[in-house]
Amino acid sequence: MKKEKIPQQQTITRTPFPASKKVYVKGQLHDISVAMREISLTNTKIFGSEGQVEKNASVTVYDTSGPYTDPEVEVDVKKGLPALRRDWILKRGDVEQLEGATSRYGKQRLANSSLDHLRFQYISKPLRAKDSLNVTQLHYAKKGIITPEMEYIAIRENQRIDVLNEQNPTLAHQHAGHSFGANTPKSHITPEFVRQEVAAGRAVIPANINHPETEPMIIGRNFLVKINANIGNSAVTSSIEEEVEKAVWACRWGADTIMDLSTGKNIHETREWVIRNSPVPIGTVPIYQALEKVGGKAEALTWEIFRDTLIEQAEQGVDYFTIHAGVLLRYVPLTAKRLTGIVSRGGSIMAKWCLAHHKENFLYTHFEEICQIMKAYDVSFSLGDGLRPGCLADANDAAQFAELETLGELTKIAWKHDVQTIIEGPGHVPMHLIKENMDKQLKECHEAPFYTLGPLTTDIAPGYDHITSAIGAAMIGWFGTAMLCYVTPKEHLGLPNKKDVKDGVITYKIAAHAADLAKGHPGAQYRDNALSKARFEFRWQDQFNLSLDPDTAREFHDETLPAEGAKIAHFCSMCGPNFCSMKITQEVREYADQQGVQEAEALRKGMEEKSKEFTQKGSELYL
Amino acid sequence: MKKEKIPQQQTITRTPFPASKKVYVKGQLHDISVAMREISLTNTKIFGSEGQVEKNASVTVYDTSGPYTDPEVEVDVKKGLPALRRDWILKRGDVEQLEGATSRYGKQRLANSSLDHLRFQYISKPLRAKDSLNVTQLHYAKKGIITPEMEYIAIRENQRIDVLNEQNPTLAHQHAGHSFGANTPKSHITPEFVRQEVAAGRAVIPANINHPETEPMIIGRNFLVKINANIGNSAVTSSIEEEVEKAVWACRWGADTIMDLSTGKNIHETREWVIRNSPVPIGTVPIYQALEKVGGKAEALTWEIFRDTLIEQAEQGVDYFTIHAGVLLRYVPLTAKRLTGIVSRGGSIMAKWCLAHHKENFLYTHFEEICQIMKAYDVSFSLGDGLRPGCLADANDAAQFAELETLGELTKIAWKHDVQTIIEGPGHVPMHLIKENMDKQLKECHEAPFYTLGPLTTDIAPGYDHITSAIGAAMIGWFGTAMLCYVTPKEHLGLPNKKDVKDGVITYKIAAHAADLAKGHPGAQYRDNALSKARFEFRWQDQFNLSLDPDTAREFHDETLPAEGAKIAHFCSMCGPNFCSMKITQEVREYADQQGVQEAEALRKGMEEKSKEFTQKGSELYL
Repeated sequence: MKKEKIPQQQTITRTPFPASKKVYVKGQLHDISVAMREISLTNTKIFGSEGQVEKNASVTVYDTSGPYTDPEVEVDVKKGLPALRRDWILKRGDVEQLEGATSRYGKQRLANSSLDHLRFQYISKPLRAKDSLNVTQLHYAKKGIITPEMEYIAIRENQRIDVLNEQNPTLAHQHAGHSFGANTPKSHITPEFVRQEVAAGRAVIPANINHPETEPMIIGRNFLVKINANIGNSAVTSSIEEEVEKAVWACRWGADTIMDLSTGKNIHETREWVIRNSPVPIGTVPIYQALEKVGGKAEALTWEIFRDTLIEQAEQGVDYFTIHAGVLLRYVPLTAKRLTGIVSRGGSIMAKWCLAHHKENFLYTHFEEICQIMKAYDVSFSLGDGLRPGCLADANDAAQFAELETLGELTKIAWKHDVQTIIEGPGHVPMHLIKENMDKQLKECHEAPFYTLGPLTTDIAPGYDHITSAIGAAMIGWFGTAMLCYVTPKEHLGLPNKKDVKDGVITYKIAAHAADLAKGHPGAQYRDNALSKARFEFRWQDQFNLSLDPDTAREFHDETLPAEGAKIAHFCSMCGPNFCSMKITQEVREYADQQGVQEAEALRKGMEEKSKEFTQKGSELYL
Repeated sequence: MKKEKIPQQQTITRTPFPASKKVYVKGQLHDISVAMREISLTNTKIFGSEGQVEKNASVTVYDTSGPYTDPEVEVDVKKGLPALRRDWILKRGDVEQLEGATSRYGKQRLANSSLDHLRFQYISKPLRAKDSLNVTQLHYAKKGIITPEMEYIAIRENQRIDVLNEQNPTLAHQHAGHSFGANTPKSHITPEFVRQEVAAGRAVIPANINHPETEPMIIGRNFLVKINANIGNSAVTSSIEEEVEKAVWACRWGADTIMDLSTGKNIHETREWVIRNSPVPIGTVPIYQALEKVGGKAEALTWEIFRDTLIEQAEQGVDYFTIHAGVLLRYVPLTAKRLTGIVSRGGSIMAKWCLAHHKENFLYTHFEEICQIMKAYDVSFSLGDGLRPGCLADANDAAQFAELETLGELTKIAWKHDVQTIIEGPGHVPMHLIKENMDKQLKECHEAPFYTLGPLTTDIAPGYDHITSAIGAAMIGWFGTAMLCYVTPKEHLGLPNKKDVKDGVITYKIAAHAADLAKGHPGAQYRDNALSKARFEFRWQDQFNLSLDPDTAREFHDETLPAEGAKIAHFCSMCGPNFCSMKITQEVREYADQQGVQEAEALRKGMEEKSKEFTQKGSELYL
């Protein structure tokens, strides 16, 4: 019966982050307000002074949590989020409002009154491109149009770094990164740069015209590395309200997109609830639902059923579809000698279909028809890697790379139709074989964004695969992957609960941010610097509030030193009150000030010469 | 009062691992038995057959848990572990048994009857090298002697891989690694190879003659990557029995060495308990205890007090000492402009001392006297990186690298005395600057083993620093680091509890193993292959039992599908009973058998030509 309840407001997490407030930055080309999170900091007590303080400017961070963390915004999950993009879409004058859902299945579900009690109440009529028009961001970009979405993204990616650096130059220092030929602008992102990247196919903006609730975001190697969180019930567990809260919860901790992989009953209705309440793009794997429609029998799948499913979901507002069009009949036997065969669900569904009919994959043969549907709603392709390796032993094999080459061909076809496209990647790969995946993807897929699952760098740690995969994810993100699909601790074992979702998201934020730092993304290091300064100055609250998970940081600290006093104390539980390493550094600075650092530098160089001599003399230390 | 209790047997974890038994492999050169863990597997049901099965040979894995997981061995923490190496040491005829502790402090503590109730009962008289003799493994190696320790290590590192590969050739496949110039033997490790590596200084065997309880292990880039776990009470918390169990607990999950960083009272007695009950080498930072002896005032430290502390701890059996001899007066000002100054406790203690006296670091000026002590007990140097960066901003700076160069000089001096030496490394380093650390260490320190803390690849995730650092640890392990010092989730926030210690150890086993795989260490992939085969064949129990943490894997699985039946079911909770990807692969194999894979390969190549043509033709799919 659990499944039958309608989401209740109170089940949705809305607490703002500590010491944080939502700020909205205005656009210049368009009338837009870009949401960000501003973390205010406490003052630094100047060591040894009579209560003198240094003011610490607040820090702005990228915020995927949507309106839920803004107490000013009233949210009613029964009504869904405000339609941020609605006017932008209509103003373009290239869409028409339909009378209602045009998919056979969509109509059926709507007509079925037994579903009324769990149906979203305010379903608006779907939009679709007028006749032969193309409404994709790629199409606009190629025509030289900078859409509101593009300006929103430029402002969002910059996170006011110019202002921050001006306010606090000491935190502006950042290591020059190594970006393997990515060409992120050195200082900040302009709307025109966003347009160029989208036009080149190097970046995508998942933005279905029927999902106006999304806050625009971009997936491309010259932008911040993004992460995706999978949610979804299955035949075994879960309920609608859990799904909505799971999505809100995942966004709260940093998910840039959500994939709804539901396979249970009522997934059509569940999806409506999730999309209407999601501030981030939603992706799906339509073949999963198509399979349910034919009772789970892969061989019973038809192009017509699949096509109807695409339209059903496109009209609900799904922003990107995983399509396993690269699983070709001739590739299937290449998996026969594998240790773990085909582990992608979509891949094995299509493999089974191909074998059963001894025909080519219908997703491949009907690919251009799929493009026609995608461009009418601006749904982006996520070309699935149905033959990805399921264990280290199968990594980088003939089957995997054969499919990747085909995905490259399909990318060209999608682009011919101005349909935005990203490419999915593995899987299980040992560290030393990760770069080959990235290099081959860039080459074969013409720099279309790469979207990888992990990769997991060892198979022996079920229960910890968020970690085995974060290692690979951080590396491949550095090498150029644009979006990382998270892995939770339950991978291979079961369905993630709320804690698992949070663990997976935080772990992947770490991997993505580590990649941004290594690539030298402009401003990426600012938050690290601010947090480290707070740590050094024993501003415990600021250290907690600047962290990816303030709640856990505070909780862990309090386990050892619960007293409020301890949070302003000039020592930490690791060393105890008697002695603290950081305190001493203050004295070093005073010493250096007397000496003058330059002088010390010179001194050092001189002494080095000496010490060289002295080792040559056989290192007699007491001459 | 908690601190005053004597450890109770029942507080020590002794449960054997599921489906596992201890096995002992005999030596050929010496009368030794090398402990390993053997995991027995269930049979594979051959798909579609009438109950036919394939037998799966058991898997042998590296085991650091010591006698605690062998039900055959009676362990009494009050008596300590059996003295495995005692006879090997005495047979060499180069040590003498002392009347008792020779350090002033050691004698004081022994004389203090108020400590009787918490003193270890069976303290044996310490051993020391006869007069001018040298009892280090490096000294023996240089003389061409293969010690029992060396043969033990060779057998232990191989983990019977030859037998395993013979028993199950399908699991023998392993990717050729990329080892950055390390020269690990392709097939297996010989005792002579161990000797050569130790003689060259590329590997160390921490094995104090007063810690005969250790099971010999090796730290070097041409061997399995090792991990260290820190334990230790502090002024703020903890008790003796907790320390012993923490050590046993850390070894159980995979710690190859333990560092006792206790800073509280009674650390002399605590250390005795820990060493007598530790099957792995114990490391310490003697300056911590020396500081306690002078009431926490760094400037009050003297060479005499430090020297007495070295002897005190050497005679208890500490296997390696972290010595911050590279923190030179002239380097201290180089840290003045840092964002987080000096964060190493040892480093800041010595910096403070240098500044207070305006004199050179006494660990540096007395370095050869320290060598004299080390070689009389075979204590290894772990040359501390007192100037390691405490945040990303300070990574790879002048202070850090200046100290590293000095550690290189000191390595030469230590080697002149045949004292085994490893070098400690950072710290906080963004991914793209990690390799520079490894390359510079190999060059400056003449290939002495590198022993790094993390490095952490971002500063913004307190509460998750086991993960931020595992990313860096896996990479630097791959590049050539020999031992990884673990980081727990409590890093920067508080003292680790048992759960944190386990999380830190498992996370670092993952990093170390990922590095072994990427380096192509012989046999490293066998366990991954065995687990993946079990996963593919739905042998859930085998999947759990082969994992690094069987308890957690089983528990996570049971959260979703508790039924015993589910563990042999041919589906998993991710897909539900209706459909499962792995099932389909069975059909693929049958299909491939009909076709013949070779034929398919040929077919594929042909088709690729076709598809190239066809894209040139503009990808019209329906000609």
